[in-house]
Amino acid sequence: MTASVLVLNGPNLNLLGTREPETYGRETLADIEAACTRRAEALGLAVTFRQSNAEGELVDWIQQARGTHDVLVVNAGAYTHTSVAILDALLACEVPVIEVHLSNIHRREDFRHHSYVSRAAVGMIAGLGGHGYELALEAAARMVETG
Amino acid sequence: MTASVLVLNGPNLNLLGTREPETYGRETLADIEAACTRRAEALGLAVTFRQSNAEGELVDWIQQARGTHDVLVVNAGAYTHTSVAILDALLACEVPVIEVHLSNIHRREDFRHHSYVSRAAVGMIAGLGGHGYELALEAAARMVETG
Amino acid sequence: MTASVLVLNGPNLNLLGTREPETYGRETLADIEAACTRRAEALGLAVTFRQSNAEGELVDWIQQARGTHDVLVVNAGAYTHTSVAILDALLACEVPVIEVHLSNIHRREDFRHHSYVSRAAVGMIAGLGGHGYELALEAAARMVETG
Amino acid sequence: MTASVLVLNGPNLNLLGTREPETYGRETLADIEAACTRRAEALGLAVTFRQSNAEGELVDWIQQARGTHDVLVVNAGAYTHTSVAILDALLACEVPVIEVHLSNIHRREDFRHHSYVSRAAVGMIAGLGGHGYELALEAAARMVETG
Amino acid sequence: MTASVLVLNGPNLNLLGTREPETYGRETLADIEAACTRRAEALGLAVTFRQSNAEGELVDWIQQARGTHDVLVVNAGAYTHTSVAILDALLACEVPVIEVHLSNIHRREDFRHHSYVSRAAVGMIAGLGGHGYELALEAAARMVETG
Amino acid sequence: MTASVLVLNGPNLNLLGTREPETYGRETLADIEAACTRRAEALGLAVTFRQSNAEGELVDWIQQARGTHDVLVVNAGAYTHTSVAILDALLACEVPVIEVHLSNIHRREDFRHHSYVSRAAVGMIAGLGGHGYELALEAAARMVETG
Amino acid sequence: MTASVLVLNGPNLNLLGTREPETYGRETLADIEAACTRRAEALGLAVTFRQSNAEGELVDWIQQARGTHDVLVVNAGAYTHTSVAILDALLACEVPVIEVHLSNIHRREDFRHHSYVSRAAVGMIAGLGGHGYELALEAAARMVETG
Amino acid sequence: MTASVLVLNGPNLNLLGTREPETYGRETLADIEAACTRRAEALGLAVTFRQSNAEGELVDWIQQARGTHDVLVVNAGAYTHTSVAILDALLACEVPVIEVHLSNIHRREDFRHHSYVSRAAVGMIAGLGGHGYELALEAAARMVETG
Amino acid sequence: MTASVLVLNGPNLNLLGTREPETYGRETLADIEAACTRRAEALGLAVTFRQSNAEGELVDWIQQARGTHDVLVVNAGAYTHTSVAILDALLACEVPVIEVHLSNIHRREDFRHHSYVSRAAVGMIAGLGGHGYELALEAAARMVETG
Amino acid sequence: MTASVLVLNGPNLNLLGTREPETYGRETLADIEAACTRRAEALGLAVTFRQSNAEGELVDWIQQARGTHDVLVVNAGAYTHTSVAILDALLACEVPVIEVHLSNIHRREDFRHHSYVSRAAVGMIAGLGGHGYELALEAAARMVETG
Amino acid sequence: MTASVLVLNGPNLNLLGTREPETYGRETLADIEAACTRRAEALGLAVTFRQSNAEGELVDWIQQARGTHDVLVVNAGAYTHTSVAILDALLACEVPVIEVHLSNIHRREDFRHHSYVSRAAVGMIAGLGGHGYELALEAAARMVETG
Amino acid sequence: MTASVLVLNGPNLNLLGTREPETYGRETLADIEAACTRRAEALGLAVTFRQSNAEGELVDWIQQARGTHDVLVVNAGAYTHTSVAILDALLACEVPVIEVHLSNIHRREDFRHHSYVSRAAVGMIAGLGGHGYELALEAAARMVETG
Repeated sequence: MTASVLVLNGPNLNLLGTREPETYGRETLADIEAACTRRAEALGLAVTFRQSNAEGELVDWIQQARGTHDVLVVNAGAYTHTSVAILDALLACEVPVIEVHLSNIHRREDFRHHSYVSRAAVGMIAGLGGHGYELALEAAARMVETG
Repeated sequence: MTASVLVLNGPNLNLLGTREPETYGRETLADIEAACTRRAEALGLAVTFRQSNAEGELVDWIQQARGTHDVLVVNAGAYTHTSVAILDALLACEVPVIEVHLSNIHRREDFRHHSYVSRAAVGMIAGLGGHGYELALEAAARMVETG
Repeated sequence: MTASVLVLNGPNLNLLGTREPETYGRETLADIEAACTRRAEALGLAVTFRQSNAEGELVDWIQQARGTHDVLVVNAGAYTHTSVAILDALLACEVPVIEVHLSNIHRREDFRHHSYVSRAAVGMIAGLGGHGYELALEAAARMVETG
Repeated sequence: MTASVLVLNGPNLNLLGTREPETYGRETLADIEAACTRRAEALGLAVTFRQSNAEGELVDWIQQARGTHDVLVVNAGAYTHTSVAILDALLACEVPVIEVHLSNIHRREDFRHHSYVSRAAVGMIAGLGGHGYELALEAAARMVETG
Repeated sequence: MTASVLVLNGPNLNLLGTREPETYGRETLADIEAACTRRAEALGLAVTFRQSNAEGELVDWIQQARGTHDVLVVNAGAYTHTSVAILDALLACEVPVIEVHLSNIHRREDFRHHSYVSRAAVGMIAGLGGHGYELALEAAARMVETG
Repeated sequence: MTASVLVLNGPNLNLLGTREPETYGRETLADIEAACTRRAEALGLAVTFRQSNAEGELVDWIQQARGTHDVLVVNAGAYTHTSVAILDALLACEVPVIEVHLSNIHRREDFRHHSYVSRAAVGMIAGLGGHGYELALEAAARMVETG
Repeated sequence: MTASVLVLNGPNLNLLGTREPETYGRETLADIEAACTRRAEALGLAVTFRQSNAEGELVDWIQQARGTHDVLVVNAGAYTHTSVAILDALLACEVPVIEVHLSNIHRREDFRHHSYVSRAAVGMIAGLGGHGYELALEAAARMVETG
Repeated sequence: MTASVLVLNGPNLNLLGTREPETYGRETLADIEAACTRRAEALGLAVTFRQSNAEGELVDWIQQARGTHDVLVVNAGAYTHTSVAILDALLACEVPVIEVHLSNIHRREDFRHHSYVSRAAVGMIAGLGGHGYELALEAAARMVETG
Repeated sequence: MTASVLVLNGPNLNLLGTREPETYGRETLADIEAACTRRAEALGLAVTFRQSNAEGELVDWIQQARGTHDVLVVNAGAYTHTSVAILDALLACEVPVIEVHLSNIHRREDFRHHSYVSRAAVGMIAGLGGHGYELALEAAARMVETG
Repeated sequence: MTASVLVLNGPNLNLLGTREPETYGRETLADIEAACTRRAEALGLAVTFRQSNAEGELVDWIQQARGTHDVLVVNAGAYTHTSVAILDALLACEVPVIEVHLSNIHRREDFRHHSYVSRAAVGMIAGLGGHGYELALEAAARMVETG
Repeated sequence: MTASVLVLNGPNLNLLGTREPETYGRETLADIEAACTRRAEALGLAVTFRQSNAEGELVDWIQQARGTHDVLVVNAGAYTHTSVAILDALLACEVPVIEVHLSNIHRREDFRHHSYVSRAAVGMIAGLGGHGYELALEAAARMVETG
Repeated sequence: MTASVLVLNGPNLNLLGTREPETYGRETLADIEAACTRRAEALGLAVTFRQSNAEGELVDWIQQARGTHDVLVVNAGAYTHTSVAILDALLACEVPVIEVHLSNIHRREDFRHHSYVSRAAVGMIAGLGGHGYELALEAAARMVETG
């Protein structure tokens, strides 16, 4: 059976490619989704790609992932640093989580150094732009493979 | 006239009974609601029971409680620790608040020790599982009684 | 067999009803003891009620509770915030502990926000005045019941 | 061409005039909107006035302001102190921001002293009640004028 | 009777227009004084404008404002962050204070985020350059008007 | 009627005159008591002088001072820095308190800089050795006089 | 030969009796000076009494005290909390220092709890109003006496 | 003449062997006393062994050690972390102190990492169970020997 | 021309596969090197693989990488958290750096949350075991490609 | 079979006896080694004694101890406070560790109060000079004996 | 043309040679001025030497240095640690600054470790007594030379 | 006899002139050594110049300086901020130390503000580039001269 990965994107990631390109690059979220689809195919994974600016909606989606998806790839954007609700949803859904960030959050403002998502994540990929999502998919495939 | 109590539940409490049972127990939120209904009846109280994963919706409900309910019983879940918006709504609605937590938040991770809700609450009941809601209802009845 | 609850009160609680009534209310400790006795009877519990201003005496009583009482209800007063000795005694006596405070300690001075007792307690009831002791007895009865 | 200003109001500001009047005054949000409309007219500005209790909705509105409005006047209420998502939206929308607060947030509780909005704002007006919004509009007009 | 406003300027504000123009702009203090005089006239206010590099002299002037002026507009410059003496003088003079800063102090070095003046001020206007003084005068006029 | 002052001394003050004389001087507690008795006589005050090493006993004595003594002079020794129980007893007994220390506690180790007693004291006299007790008695006499 | 005491008063103490009387009382600085003169006479001391709002002037006076006065009584007002320059002058002048405060600085705002003056002072008298100056003179006389 | 060592044990050490054996081991305090007696004999030392749950009683015993015992071996239990009174008694008694802990306090909860006793102790032995007491006796013998 | 990647491993990574397998897994460093060699080949990269327990040797190797290698993949082990020398070498060598960690350092002890290496790294891959090295090589290839 | 103990000494311990004798005593490291050899013989232990100024070399030796020695006695000198690499080596080598310090590190500068070694050590002996090594050997013998 | 250096000295430096000689040495400020004059001559520099106890006067002098002097050598004494006003004047005057301290401020009390002057200084010379001023002059000459 | 100065350089200083020239300048370490040799000759000093990337080697060299060199000039580079081992070696070698830094470490990242070397240094010269070494040699000559 094809393993399924849910890729969740948090607030303002819909602006990607237009917003502060010196920090986040010129790739749009649609570009990243397309690259993920191609890579998922190559890896034999099904991939679902979503974005929301609302913390509650992200919590809803994470809750629904339980029993539906095999791995969560999560770029929670700004909620990375402030949302205990998302952390609790991730802890509760019992699906392995890979945290992704476009920029290297440890080189930016102090308040971006701490991640609540990390407390629920198997691993983190940061600073590698949209390519980081593809690497996360490969890591997801490996996780599914090695159980 | 029957006094009315609004019981509000925050993010991820809809998962109760399935999520991390070693921390939160096996009782579902529906079980707790049923127990609350029975206890409210015995105490001569009307009880309304709600849950949301969205901070803004919880703020809306608290605002509407003003003039509608006599006591608020609030388990704000993860928003307990992060939401100044919920605190401000509680301060503004001028209805007495009893804070409830299923687990003893003071024995968990450091970031769960601080509660914004406490700044607006008359009292707190924590660590007594679903039974804590029933005790909160009894406390609500006593408050209404002694005015 | 009747389950037995020891209710321990720490320093200055003997002054209750006379001391700073705007913070602690007008009920005396004897009033609370009487209410507890009535409630215990209704719940089928035996209750023992004690107060001391001396940290060492409270430690002694907690040590003696082992094998004698089924639940400890503890309002350690000022020692809540400073006594590691009482914490260690509670951890050692292996009897479930319910922490009680008359006022909501989280709305008072900063140094009253931290509780050593919480580290050994199943749950906490705060801010509900003398009524909190009665609710603690009900919680104790439930604990004994559900083992 | 008439310059356009978007005035955004965060959680609980819909309660203005009824909630804690000793802190926030007796003016309602509708009163402030009316005064803003009058002042905008005098200044030759178009003004749009919105309020939401939901962080995600405020993020949406800020994103939409890009290319639509010339200045943002933002009173993010409680989200001032907690929302990195709103900060990121403000940074991304590349419209100049004037931060407004009804009360002087630096004289209130410690957790209200810090503002994420300030990191994206040209200036701040605080403590001058509803009149502060009018002054912000004049400042907006000056900004538009001097480019 | 014409209401009277004292505008006080602290250390190094005499250098305005020449010093670090990328932070403070090219307007001189004389330019700002002229704009204030025009605006005060329009608002029906008398305005007195002073600058000193000496903390003690600023304290003297604030003490003398009592019974002489109706509102104080204070840009204490560097003393904003270090002078308890100026704070105490402001608290003692019992004249309403509006704090002004040319730049947005919350976006500069950490030690400029804290203001002792704020503890005595009704409101703050920051980051709006010399125009902020004019807005402060309008706020002063409104205060005098509404008593 | 003669006003009555209770002078309380905390742990290790019984060793005075022998213990670390470079810090505490060579005067014994009996010497200080004698000087206090002489001064009290001159001031028309009755004075009672006590010392204990036990926190609980100091709490007991403070509780008993209510209605018995007009002023408390308290040198709580090491408990100054650690005892919330003594603070609560002082707050509850509603007798004015003058805090005394033999040495200047602000020039010693960091943990001696903070005093819980200060939160309940009208004033403090520190660093003036046994003479500080005499000055406290004169201050007590003045308090009684001016009501 | 008559010993000589210099009594120094810092910023805003010239306002005494008019400024925030609930904190500082209704006694003026002239009243305190008069009481000090009477007490000094009784104690056989010469007393010089000065006040300045300027940190530099206080430093000058402390420097001049060397070889001229036998004891310094210092109420540095707001400079207590901020002036290393005054501390250094006190350390350099090698005259024993008694620190005085009208109010109990340890019960006021946090930034008033720390005193640079204490690092150079033999002792402190706080919270006893103008009477504290008289007690300081008696302590000065005792110091001179006992060498 | 036989040198004499006083071994003092603080709160809850009387429970040793029964309390949390995974932390403190199964040896009772009587077992340790017996081992100490045997070792003391071998080392030519007299040993006195005491335990109390009361801080004041421990202070009394330390005060009495002066001139009576040659070395103090102190396991102050929970008071290690909270008692300035015991520290002051140790500093005052002028007998060399060896601090002992059964467990390695630096690997336990944060509040157990700090020891007031250490400020008065020559050395510390921690984490070696009851055997640590025996090693402390040997260290005591060596101290007495080498003066 | 084939691009060249230097993979550096810090202290104790030579123990991999034997040391704390529940944290670091059962793969040896040789296994990882073999997988890297295979992946490098597939990616058209040359790879050099080194390990040292000595901070100075790691500094030497980083200095030599300048002009020799196109990308650095660095797992500095424990020196991640303590070595400013390695950070400075990375900053100086002007070769892009990808930081790798076997475990998710943000879920381990607090002192492992901070990384000096991150200040010089383009990106970080953590928590994905030996597979993380392979992903880093792919990221290196992409970097070389996109210049 | 004879159990084997490795005694490791960190930087600057080779200077012992000449360096700051008021802190570290006059005994040389060779004196301590000799005393250890005698004691080890008496205890039936083999002992190996090493010193290095290089962190990496200490890491190497600890790695080699695995399977070679039964107990490690470690005085890591200055690396105690800064070396996570040594901590990781100790955790990895799975040999019980006894930490030794010549002086009582808790009475010295603040940065010497924290020990990374403690996180991997069964117990600590500090402040007993070279004799502490002998006691550590006895503790090692006891550990080997009791398994 | 001869380059010109202004040497500024802050509070209490006029006491040099008499004040705490164990910290500051026995050289007077006049001695240092003489040595500077000699050295300046040798270096072909003009030197102006000033001292003030008043923060405002130091600010005035720094403002006047603009366009008059080529380098500022600043020993701001106690104002080093507290004066943002002096920092702002130094930033505004756009003349290169060399910070000098007689003693090594990093080995003294904690509050002397931080320097506001450093934020505006090219370099610092500390702990070399009056000789440090001469070295600063040589550094000034080199700066002027190399532009 | 010619006095001898050892100049020690820490990690990455061998890269000088090539590494981050905007921070460290274009002078190489060989240039600085040459300038030092010339200056030493002029001052009548012998100078030895060394650099190492290894903490342990620097410790070795400092230990060997005892009895061999009269002054140590130390630029410990990154180890300045992290090495207690180098601090201890400097304290032990009993040779006066002058700390040198090329850049003004107090204007760089926070972790570069603290220096362990300062605790053992007579003085510090920072921010004056390679010229600072020459000034340090002159200071060394003065030290030797004045004993």
